[in-house]
Amino acid sequence: MSSQEFKQAPHKLLIIPGPIEVADDVLLANAHPAMSHVSPEFIPVFGDCIRMLREVLFAPNSQPVLTAGSGTLGWDHVAANVIQPGEDALVLNSGYFGDSFADCLETYGAKVDQIKAPIGSKPSLAEVEEALTKKKYKVLTFTHVDTSTGVLSDAKGLGEVVKRVSPETILVLDGVCSVGSEEIRMEEWGIDVVLTATQKGLGCPPGLMVLAASQKAIAAFEKRTVPPNSYFASWSRWLPVMKAYEAGTGAYFATPPTNLIYALHASLTTITKGSPSLEDRFKQHVAASDRVKDFVTQLGLQQLAADGKKDGAHGMTAVRYPQGLKATDLLPKLVAKNIVVAAGLHKQVKDEYFRIGHMGVTVVNDKERGDIDYLLNSIKESLAEAGYKP
Amino acid sequence: MSSQEFKQAPHKLLIIPGPIEVADDVLLANAHPAMSHVSPEFIPVFGDCIRMLREVLFAPNSQPVLTAGSGTLGWDHVAANVIQPGEDALVLNSGYFGDSFADCLETYGAKVDQIKAPIGSKPSLAEVEEALTKKKYKVLTFTHVDTSTGVLSDAKGLGEVVKRVSPETILVLDGVCSVGSEEIRMEEWGIDVVLTATQKGLGCPPGLMVLAASQKAIAAFEKRTVPPNSYFASWSRWLPVMKAYEAGTGAYFATPPTNLIYALHASLTTITKGSPSLEDRFKQHVAASDRVKDFVTQLGLQQLAADGKKDGAHGMTAVRYPQGLKATDLLPKLVAKNIVVAAGLHKQVKDEYFRIGHMGVTVVNDKERGDIDYLLNSIKESLAEAGYKP
Repeated sequence: MSSQEFKQAPHKLLIIPGPIEVADDVLLANAHPAMSHVSPEFIPVFGDCIRMLREVLFAPNSQPVLTAGSGTLGWDHVAANVIQPGEDALVLNSGYFGDSFADCLETYGAKVDQIKAPIGSKPSLAEVEEALTKKKYKVLTFTHVDTSTGVLSDAKGLGEVVKRVSPETILVLDGVCSVGSEEIRMEEWGIDVVLTATQKGLGCPPGLMVLAASQKAIAAFEKRTVPPNSYFASWSRWLPVMKAYEAGTGAYFATPPTNLIYALHASLTTITKGSPSLEDRFKQHVAASDRVKDFVTQLGLQQLAADGKKDGAHGMTAVRYPQGLKATDLLPKLVAKNIVVAAGLHKQVKDEYFRIGHMGVTVVNDKERGDIDYLLNSIKESLAEAGYKP
Repeated sequence: MSSQEFKQAPHKLLIIPGPIEVADDVLLANAHPAMSHVSPEFIPVFGDCIRMLREVLFAPNSQPVLTAGSGTLGWDHVAANVIQPGEDALVLNSGYFGDSFADCLETYGAKVDQIKAPIGSKPSLAEVEEALTKKKYKVLTFTHVDTSTGVLSDAKGLGEVVKRVSPETILVLDGVCSVGSEEIRMEEWGIDVVLTATQKGLGCPPGLMVLAASQKAIAAFEKRTVPPNSYFASWSRWLPVMKAYEAGTGAYFATPPTNLIYALHASLTTITKGSPSLEDRFKQHVAASDRVKDFVTQLGLQQLAADGKKDGAHGMTAVRYPQGLKATDLLPKLVAKNIVVAAGLHKQVKDEYFRIGHMGVTVVNDKERGDIDYLLNSIKESLAEAGYKP
């Protein structure tokens, strides 16, 4: 069946911070006929995904790793390969996902300190610098975009601090809600590991763990004195497989999710070789984000991020319900208009806000699709129906 | 797009022991529009998959666990949840996958003994009984069908031995190449964990780890004195999520591969509610297997399994090349006829044999598809082209 013929079924518009709307050609690729994971047709498709991921991250010297899984599994990869039991990790906590990454690191034996920011903000560069000066950390992790709060961390600034104060520290960017929707200049900024998943800015269905490691991170792995303490997430197993796929020969450790690799190939081809350019894609996300944030501000609504346009992500917005309204006053009215937004996620305030995703085709193909206009008008109407007056 | 309209693209017939040919309706489900993993539409689909998996395994009291991953990740689930560091595991080795499961168990700290059978056979029940009598094992694992050799283990017989000799031992069936194509009466036979993946007898694309645990296995997990030593494979994280999806409420630990869950739902619906019945499905796999094995025997070819029809799997056949022929003499000739079979996999003999998969739609829909006839004729012709005379 050709891509001209395939149209996905009518459905509610999914405007949450992932999974996001998926383009028809990517869904058709996900319905690819069954293929052997070591066939001469499939191997270069996998190899291309590795190569295109480097382009998205501006990291020509990095080593990508792609396996069946989710973003969460990326934490296991870091915790079991880059740091050893008993070594120190510093976790910058800007929401729900910082707590979880810390749990994961501790599961594999790391000693974790956290800098916890109040809800809606992030640790300051000065706090990070102070912490790095006081103790040598093997690993520093941060959530680039915390999906629970919509707070955007300063990846470039953190890279500068690490280079200046603690250049041996491995800087890990949790990019689950940022890769594809936020600019990440991995090598220029000095990021050592970027981990993500496919169902957000990369515009695919969920089911793939996606990671890229700098040569510094690989060297830290190679200097381990004990083997990785995970099996499925072991770089000893996966790195030779990734190199084999890229070299065009293929190798086996665990069966890759072949159809998702085809889907990712379709999406990465659009992102790296289609229109808009990668740079323009990021600019479009900034513009769409500004539009959403300005709109909710004009409606008199607060965001979870202390200063939404400055500290907020460009692929999502976390919006507080107006005084007196709650989730059940707003979300069902949006569903009735065929729009799915997300409820709150951060434990302490989850009933106080909702989350809008503006990533991928919803942003980049907005002219044809009209998703953002429809979203904003629907929010305004639904609030009015709920009795809210700006 | 409706299932009447969707037809997968023309492609080579994939007759390897997984991934296998996937039905059009399952592929279309894999191209489902993006859905929230906690939406009221998606949650019952996930719940149904849990319920239908119990039917496939004849295990109404078992607890299924489904996550993004592969069959390999199922080993991590066993190694990190059912057994604790320092405890003893006995691995029955009937090929490549026994070695790997042992590696995985050791990664998480288990002390592993193996009973290794010569290539093409499996440890005898007497050997297993003797080992269980000499030492108390927390866990006993076996590969139901070793994909590298095509040897079928005696799941029912092993269950009887464990019940009689060491009833506390957790009996783990690696069913990656058997669930859906071999009868597994999990509760009647006393199997405590069945782990598998979706791309073989379950008839889906790869990308899901599928597991079911008996109440005995769950009790062993609950009696742990140390927490699970994996994060992404931790039952502490996943069991509440599985219960929530089954209860219809949903919960979050890591994003499930939503599209693959739709695909699995489509396939499990056919397997448990379609025609043939589950029992007849297993009988059809036996019949197709006998036909393939008789055919290669009549051609004068040997199988890797010592006695193919007695010890061989019903979803695959591992066939030795005739004297003087090698992979490059046969496999490209089959590819030229649009048939993909698999090369050998067992390290010691991988250049001496090839593997045929006969699972799922290739077997069950053979009357309409004619896959088996085409396969057998093509093997005969290709051997003749290579100069082989039976």
